[in-house]
Amino acid sequence: MAATLRDLAELVGGTVVGNPEVCIRRVASIDAGGEGDITFVSNPKYLPRLHECSAAAIIVTSAVQAPGRNLLIAANPYLAFAKIQAFLQGPMPAPQGILPGVHVHPGAVLAEGITVHPGCVIGDGAKIGKGTILYPGVVVYDNVVIGEDCIVHSGVVVREGCRIGNRVVLQPSAIIGSDGFGFAPDGERYFKIPQVGIVVIEDDVEIGAATCIDRAALGVTRIRQGVKIDNLVQIAHNVEIGENTLIVSQVGIAGSSRVGRHCTLGGQSGIAGHLTVGDNVMIAGRGGVSNNVGDNQVLSGLPAIPHKTWLKAAMTFAKLPEMRKELHQLKKKLAEIAMQGKEN
Amino acid sequence: MAATLRDLAELVGGTVVGNPEVCIRRVASIDAGGEGDITFVSNPKYLPRLHECSAAAIIVTSAVQAPGRNLLIAANPYLAFAKIQAFLQGPMPAPQGILPGVHVHPGAVLAEGITVHPGCVIGDGAKIGKGTILYPGVVVYDNVVIGEDCIVHSGVVVREGCRIGNRVVLQPSAIIGSDGFGFAPDGERYFKIPQVGIVVIEDDVEIGAATCIDRAALGVTRIRQGVKIDNLVQIAHNVEIGENTLIVSQVGIAGSSRVGRHCTLGGQSGIAGHLTVGDNVMIAGRGGVSNNVGDNQVLSGLPAIPHKTWLKAAMTFAKLPEMRKELHQLKKKLAEIAMQGKEN
Amino acid sequence: MAATLRDLAELVGGTVVGNPEVCIRRVASIDAGGEGDITFVSNPKYLPRLHECSAAAIIVTSAVQAPGRNLLIAANPYLAFAKIQAFLQGPMPAPQGILPGVHVHPGAVLAEGITVHPGCVIGDGAKIGKGTILYPGVVVYDNVVIGEDCIVHSGVVVREGCRIGNRVVLQPSAIIGSDGFGFAPDGERYFKIPQVGIVVIEDDVEIGAATCIDRAALGVTRIRQGVKIDNLVQIAHNVEIGENTLIVSQVGIAGSSRVGRHCTLGGQSGIAGHLTVGDNVMIAGRGGVSNNVGDNQVLSGLPAIPHKTWLKAAMTFAKLPEMRKELHQLKKKLAEIAMQGKEN
Repeated sequence: MAATLRDLAELVGGTVVGNPEVCIRRVASIDAGGEGDITFVSNPKYLPRLHECSAAAIIVTSAVQAPGRNLLIAANPYLAFAKIQAFLQGPMPAPQGILPGVHVHPGAVLAEGITVHPGCVIGDGAKIGKGTILYPGVVVYDNVVIGEDCIVHSGVVVREGCRIGNRVVLQPSAIIGSDGFGFAPDGERYFKIPQVGIVVIEDDVEIGAATCIDRAALGVTRIRQGVKIDNLVQIAHNVEIGENTLIVSQVGIAGSSRVGRHCTLGGQSGIAGHLTVGDNVMIAGRGGVSNNVGDNQVLSGLPAIPHKTWLKAAMTFAKLPEMRKELHQLKKKLAEIAMQGKEN
Repeated sequence: MAATLRDLAELVGGTVVGNPEVCIRRVASIDAGGEGDITFVSNPKYLPRLHECSAAAIIVTSAVQAPGRNLLIAANPYLAFAKIQAFLQGPMPAPQGILPGVHVHPGAVLAEGITVHPGCVIGDGAKIGKGTILYPGVVVYDNVVIGEDCIVHSGVVVREGCRIGNRVVLQPSAIIGSDGFGFAPDGERYFKIPQVGIVVIEDDVEIGAATCIDRAALGVTRIRQGVKIDNLVQIAHNVEIGENTLIVSQVGIAGSSRVGRHCTLGGQSGIAGHLTVGDNVMIAGRGGVSNNVGDNQVLSGLPAIPHKTWLKAAMTFAKLPEMRKELHQLKKKLAEIAMQGKEN
Repeated sequence: MAATLRDLAELVGGTVVGNPEVCIRRVASIDAGGEGDITFVSNPKYLPRLHECSAAAIIVTSAVQAPGRNLLIAANPYLAFAKIQAFLQGPMPAPQGILPGVHVHPGAVLAEGITVHPGCVIGDGAKIGKGTILYPGVVVYDNVVIGEDCIVHSGVVVREGCRIGNRVVLQPSAIIGSDGFGFAPDGERYFKIPQVGIVVIEDDVEIGAATCIDRAALGVTRIRQGVKIDNLVQIAHNVEIGENTLIVSQVGIAGSSRVGRHCTLGGQSGIAGHLTVGDNVMIAGRGGVSNNVGDNQVLSGLPAIPHKTWLKAAMTFAKLPEMRKELHQLKKKLAEIAMQGKEN
């Protein structure tokens, strides 16, 4: 796709400074831009690079001036860039239907306008909505429901009865509906608790590569609308993730915990089981939550404490051996002084 | 399946208080129970909810009284619940044989009474026992042995020569027998050590989704009877896990370490290489074991120390900056006092 | 394969002490060796076991004496062992071509002398070099390039446009080219940044099982020559890993960070986004890097600090509660002394 800068400005609700007729075909990073390219500057620290940039147009905020350049002024340059990039990519490819080498159970119901690549297997009672693409080798167990305009990459497995909304993206080898980790002690041995619940993934969710979302023991593990989950994340049985929460790579959330809306869980962080985390909470990378958390908190460390407190403590940590030595010296001196006091 | 409360009591070695003829068809959580449902109360903190519960029957210990309710009295209500749930689910579905779209090497030996779904590939010399189910897209390399009544979910890969016992459950995309991470330095470069050992998984083991168990460099990586492993766990080459040990999600165990019987390794914990961990050891979530551990220890932190010691230290951690300031003030005051002493 | 000890010494540039005609067929561990076996002793702590060892020959350094034994003297016994093992395994199996049950797009270009097992799917414009083996169920998206003599295990997914060099090994379910985790805030919601870059994996790289390497947002995520990555590792978009760096299991590297040459990143360690890590850096297991790192550093802890500093501080950590108590006592005593001073 190609468009004039004027059309792109209209698309993102921005304005043009410079030549509105310049033709844009691609997005580029600030270093790599050339003719037909549009780039953006969002972080002020990259502003000095503006002069070296040779892109045909640059998306900036109204605070930026660059005489002689074609600028697209937008309130949020990064968001405008993303929207322009999505537009220039053009629509999804035309649906190809059920390609050869697919195994669809006669009891499955596939909408018109879908694409199912070779090597996919779709079970009895499964339903897949229009516009959805299944890349090669996706397995959909019995009675799964997948909505419209979803993108399901190779190696994804969706186990029996799980329900996936519209416009959901599943990166390669995401696993939806694996058994929760539930075992009842029986002497030294463990007896498996049948995991008969499901996973519900609402609209506009993205799930990363090799991320595992376990089915509920009973009931539902629920990923609410707009949640974005990175790669290699573990979501245990009966967890609930609130709307528009971001979960970065390698996070683990233990069973039955509930995370609120619009939270950010940093990479490699963890949340213990049976906890409630409020809305707009940020957990720093590697943070370990072991208690309930109220709204609007920023936490770090294990166990997680307020981020600023943790940061000061973590900076002092390296001084611990020195502090211990000083403490010994003080004790010794104090004992000497006390001794002298007595002698006096 | 359905059964009278009397029959279920007999199944789990319990007794009935109330109507033994009530018909039970399903299990339910304590909130959700209705006619035909059985639920349980194991944790005393849920006892107050008993009055609001409308399940047809409730599994409790003999300590609980609830006049007018149908009770199943059991020594271990949670275990009884799990056994009743397994019973009510009914037997495994009837075997379906080798379904279309499966590639079986003529040198493979498949028992009667198995189910192999479309997209599975089974190599030369592989043996699969009766009652085992391979869901779509499982890959079994050459000379693998899989026992009886196993459940192998989609995306599982079992590499050459590995041996899996009976009643083993492999969740989606579990990887058995990937190469261990072994490289010999050769100047700045690394030369791959061929990984020619195997993985042996004994009876009644469960392996979580996307969990990786590396084959031994030489010899065997061994997962002993009754071990239960959660999702996204890394077990390196030549590791040995003792009977009935539980390993929670995202744990990593480095090469050649041995973990004892009936241990619990908490989520995101780790064990360094070439260590021995005793029996009945508990490692808390995120614990990092860097030394050998005797039997019956409970450890936390990095490096892992006794859990109670760690807990107290972790609670003091946030006070570190305050402690450092106090230490400076004390030093200053002490210097003043010493000065005054000299002046006197 | 079999060889005389003389031939093997020649292969690895070593010398024989004892009988150069002894025939060697297999490698073995020092405990398990017998007739036809060769083993090695690299770590001096295993030298006492030499007397119990019954292997036909033993690889040692020139410092070791063992009268009556057949020794292969090598500068680096571990490396010599690895090379001998690779030699005794013999060459790769003869290529089998495109086996039944493979879906190759007519626009793909497959070299002579490759092996593609059942269940593989190869997209339009993909190119695969000679000698490469694709095990069952590998998915290669459109326009992927895979070089010569690669080994690609089952469940691997290589997404569109990614480029893989020669002699690369991809363990089962490694995922190359999944979307980076990039979203622009749009009020409370997030708008997906199209991830249109690629992954380039250079020659002689190994990627572990279920490891995820995200495609760049724009440009390239690059894994340079000779890098070895273990299982379940996360490499985010636009990361660059320098030559011959080792990355142990469950490491996470956030977006746009650059790691130098010949580094070692220990298990479960992490590197935050937009950082530069120098050459020959070692990050200990679970280390968390949150600042740029110069060359030749050895770091531990979160945030990562010099390993020796961290080690001392970590050893003092358990003393924190005791230190706090002592601090209170000192304060109290000092106040008493100050009071006495005033009273005097």
